[in-house]
Amino acid sequence: MREQFRLEMHELYDTLIAETKGAARAMRLAAESFKDANLALAEQVIDADQKIDLLERNVDEMAISLLVRQAPVAKDLRTVASAMRLSSTIERMGDLARHVAYVARGRYPATVVQGPVYDLLTAMADQAALVGEKVAKLVETKDLALAREILADDDVLDDLHRKSFDYVLDTELELSRQEIVDIILLGRYMERYGDQAVNVATRMQFLITGMEPEA
Amino acid sequence: MREQFRLEMHELYDTLIAETKGAARAMRLAAESFKDANLALAEQVIDADQKIDLLERNVDEMAISLLVRQAPVAKDLRTVASAMRLSSTIERMGDLARHVAYVARGRYPATVVQGPVYDLLTAMADQAALVGEKVAKLVETKDLALAREILADDDVLDDLHRKSFDYVLDTELELSRQEIVDIILLGRYMERYGDQAVNVATRMQFLITGMEPEA
Repeated sequence: MREQFRLEMHELYDTLIAETKGAARAMRLAAESFKDANLALAEQVIDADQKIDLLERNVDEMAISLLVRQAPVAKDLRTVASAMRLSSTIERMGDLARHVAYVARGRYPATVVQGPVYDLLTAMADQAALVGEKVAKLVETKDLALAREILADDDVLDDLHRKSFDYVLDTELELSRQEIVDIILLGRYMERYGDQAVNVATRMQFLITGMEPEA
Repeated sequence: MREQFRLEMHELYDTLIAETKGAARAMRLAAESFKDANLALAEQVIDADQKIDLLERNVDEMAISLLVRQAPVAKDLRTVASAMRLSSTIERMGDLARHVAYVARGRYPATVVQGPVYDLLTAMADQAALVGEKVAKLVETKDLALAREILADDDVLDDLHRKSFDYVLDTELELSRQEIVDIILLGRYMERYGDQAVNVATRMQFLITGMEPEA
């Protein structure tokens, strides 16, 4: 019984790790698809999202089954409850990467924008992908230092996001209406991806330490 | 023991109803604040969001406690598991209403836009508020007809959302950069609110009937 329980706990957590790796990979590929107007990569991100959704459902079903049949306590209970919340946050990260890929696909064979805004948005995409990879590593290793890094990193993404509004509102800078739409939506998707990474980081801090994060 | 269990089930579900009513009211007030450039209403929506967040946490804590201590089965298990997913979806609806209120507050004392786009965005806001109210009624009454209505209603919101892009991309229509930003972001918030309402409706169908929704 105990051995079965430990086995199921491992399976639950391994599924969560796989989901997180999927969401990290999705943003990395979305960033590349967007930088190089790479249609195949964009399609790959869009197709792979179903797998992330499936892993989310698996985590949830395993978690509920474990709660009801095994009535875990203390750290195990915290792990199961956290896994349920993390799974939906991470599924959302996958969705946001997919949205970035949609924009890249929609503009193919051109890149979404050119010039200084291209540089800014690619910097945002790289930063979002980097944060996604840190999130995957945090979930896998439970290394608190990574959680702190992710929280600090969010300022970088927020600053880049603010700068994207500066560009859009600067009427000296010539932009088509379509470019403005793309910049605002891409900025929003990537900023939200970062927000969700922050949610994962604070949830992981709670999971690891058992202490509620300071507000 | 049984009586205590039923009591806790009722408390859980009542908390979910209260959360849903909060998210519905938030979009209704956000729509009004945005139509009339009503700063006090916008502030009210922003402040009230904390209450929705708290209700979400309460639902989650009650649900986990019930699962572990009472090991519910069949329909009760479905209710508890659904409540956890619903609570986070509905919390997100509250956030989106808050984002609408932020835009209204940011443009005060002016309205966000004027002219035909104003008419379109207020139609979207009214539609989102209506859907929110249907969601609250669906969660309260578990009336399947309401779930079907919400699913059908989503086309209305999606059509209005598409139309907002038509306006933005129509270079004959004079719009400032700030107006374009606001239109795109408001459109996105309200469309997402509708998407989340659809998620609630399909989840409620499952809760009520026990059958997984057709994809």
